[in-house]
Amino acid sequence: MTLDTFSTVVDAYRADIGRTRNDLTTPALLLDLPRVRKNIQTMAASLNGAPHLRPHVKSHKCVQIAKMQIEAGAAGVTTATVWEAAMMARAGMDDLLIANEVVGDEKIHCLAETARIARMTVAVDHIGNAETVSAAAQLAKAEIGVLIEVDVGMNRCGVRSAEEARTLAKKLGSLPGLRLRGVMGYEGHCALEVNRDVRAAKAGEAMKKLLAVVEALEADGFEMQVVSAGGTSTYDLTGANRRITEIQAGSYVFMDVTRLPIAPAFEIALTVLCTVVSRTADTVVLDCGKKAIGADFMLPRLKESGLPARACAEEHLLFDVDSNYPLEVGDRVEVVSGYCPITVNIHEVYHVMEDGVVADIWPILTRGPGFGPLRRFIRNQRNGLVTQR
Amino acid sequence: MTLDTFSTVVDAYRADIGRTRNDLTTPALLLDLPRVRKNIQTMAASLNGAPHLRPHVKSHKCVQIAKMQIEAGAAGVTTATVWEAAMMARAGMDDLLIANEVVGDEKIHCLAETARIARMTVAVDHIGNAETVSAAAQLAKAEIGVLIEVDVGMNRCGVRSAEEARTLAKKLGSLPGLRLRGVMGYEGHCALEVNRDVRAAKAGEAMKKLLAVVEALEADGFEMQVVSAGGTSTYDLTGANRRITEIQAGSYVFMDVTRLPIAPAFEIALTVLCTVVSRTADTVVLDCGKKAIGADFMLPRLKESGLPARACAEEHLLFDVDSNYPLEVGDRVEVVSGYCPITVNIHEVYHVMEDGVVADIWPILTRGPGFGPLRRFIRNQRNGLVTQR
Repeated sequence: MTLDTFSTVVDAYRADIGRTRNDLTTPALLLDLPRVRKNIQTMAASLNGAPHLRPHVKSHKCVQIAKMQIEAGAAGVTTATVWEAAMMARAGMDDLLIANEVVGDEKIHCLAETARIARMTVAVDHIGNAETVSAAAQLAKAEIGVLIEVDVGMNRCGVRSAEEARTLAKKLGSLPGLRLRGVMGYEGHCALEVNRDVRAAKAGEAMKKLLAVVEALEADGFEMQVVSAGGTSTYDLTGANRRITEIQAGSYVFMDVTRLPIAPAFEIALTVLCTVVSRTADTVVLDCGKKAIGADFMLPRLKESGLPARACAEEHLLFDVDSNYPLEVGDRVEVVSGYCPITVNIHEVYHVMEDGVVADIWPILTRGPGFGPLRRFIRNQRNGLVTQR
Repeated sequence: MTLDTFSTVVDAYRADIGRTRNDLTTPALLLDLPRVRKNIQTMAASLNGAPHLRPHVKSHKCVQIAKMQIEAGAAGVTTATVWEAAMMARAGMDDLLIANEVVGDEKIHCLAETARIARMTVAVDHIGNAETVSAAAQLAKAEIGVLIEVDVGMNRCGVRSAEEARTLAKKLGSLPGLRLRGVMGYEGHCALEVNRDVRAAKAGEAMKKLLAVVEALEADGFEMQVVSAGGTSTYDLTGANRRITEIQAGSYVFMDVTRLPIAPAFEIALTVLCTVVSRTADTVVLDCGKKAIGADFMLPRLKESGLPARACAEEHLLFDVDSNYPLEVGDRVEVVSGYCPITVNIHEVYHVMEDGVVADIWPILTRGPGFGPLRRFIRNQRNGLVTQR
């Protein structure tokens, strides 16, 4: 099953297959396939099913990679948006967790329609939202699993106390079409802490908050089938807690400058291939600004030398160098993202590299707001489903 | 002339025409058409042709807006990339300046092919690059104008001295297919300086550097037909200098949190429509993170109240509020970008708003690396041109 728009985009890049990096037009997103495979194996071996890995696809937005993760033993996938989930379900994935609240008519409708073709679970923190999801589930004759999101320290989404969780859980129990499956709490506020002991302490505090809610809900008779948490920065810390049933790590597949010192078990498997567009005695300028690479939290670096950028402008990445630094106008060089999910959100496709050549082109789906072509596709499919009734 | 891929994307949103903001799926990029028109008129009246305005399309990437700017008297358009220029030329624009070096075979080939259908000028700072552009121009039987880029204080691209400029100018004179038309120097290092006097002093210093190069080249007998500089932050400062022939301002069309205090003559004409996805006593969370809005330099703000965000995550925009702040889960609210060109780079289309409803859907072209669908299109067109020879 393909989306016409996406295959048109992929087709535009297909002539690159078989080329080496010197023959590609830049900026181009290079995926190092052996290293992606290795990172997937490393994570699978590290968790080994206890807790389960439910990899977050927000970091790659790519069906091919999600399938590799499932083949390596993942329990299903986690998504940030309903559009990512809709896409993955229509590519054959089953058992999907949307690790955020889904709010708004078209999004909730998409969630319910997707629940007809795949097992869906979604985060909730508000009874009004849950009622709307329940109504949509009934309309679609589907069941939707829900996790109560608990704010474990980000001051973002989620209930703030065990009391709030208990009140919400009781009300959820009366809503047809929904099934309370457990809780989730993302300790993202620990993710940038480089000191492992400090990170472990902070993540431990966060999980205490989450497990206090678990205990309160269990005391009320609710079965906590799912307790979901964790990311690439905390997979081995949070994952060591026996009460956590699922880890949501995603960026370990690719890695970036921000996470490299925090999760050293994984290797850089995603780079942006750039061209030197200007060179003076003390400066190298690449054709890769914020419109082509994620420079969040940390600035990008050269892959080979590790040299950090001085600045990242809209269309330019700047490096301070000595006059004898061996880069000239026209040279190609690979750059590591500051933060890989933002890089992925910008590019149309991966150039999948194996043995130094482009082995394949893989589309990046549901970029940005993410619902344009998908909306059209789902509308058509929905009509198909209506006909089947 | 349309690109199939782009029209497919636009078609996916066309059902939104006639809807009010409460019936749109979020995040959606709203373009306030009366305000865009007003901003275009304000800039046209301010410069009034002395110097000429050559608006930068990197801020909107939209043919419809470029045409409005030309109709209001702009001399042509400025682009950041060869792909933006290729698109604008194929939409009927003529007299285009690419205000950056174009490096790499496919890009230079695209530049030369585009020069066959529209007058093209490009920035250069390196003789080797100029030689390649010259060779491509000869192959395409086209002439390409060049401006010597001068580094006026950004430590980015451009020659660093009048001597370097003179050496480059002499060599350029012997390259067939190229025509040296003048110089450009972008004073971007002044653009974020909020104090107008300090900004004026810094921009003045930058223009001194640029004009020193102009004088040296004129003394060598080169005609300086074009002296291009300026942006939204300096259009009225740099624009007051009689030796500057062209101003490259772009973001004035839309504005953002970063430029609002710096260019108060213009009004916010671009917002991201968001939905409240979570609400606690002290926090409002919107469905609009860095994957949907530019949060560079300054964090986004609510349009109506001006409330600045506390943080911008990947999928969430967070606001600290009092418990009685009137926003509930499901409410719609418009947000002003921190930096508008990054927002534009993420979205597929503009929802063009007039009288409170969606009047039209306009595509945003050459987003991100920008060459996927365009590559295919140009390849097809190139074959057409070859047939005509």
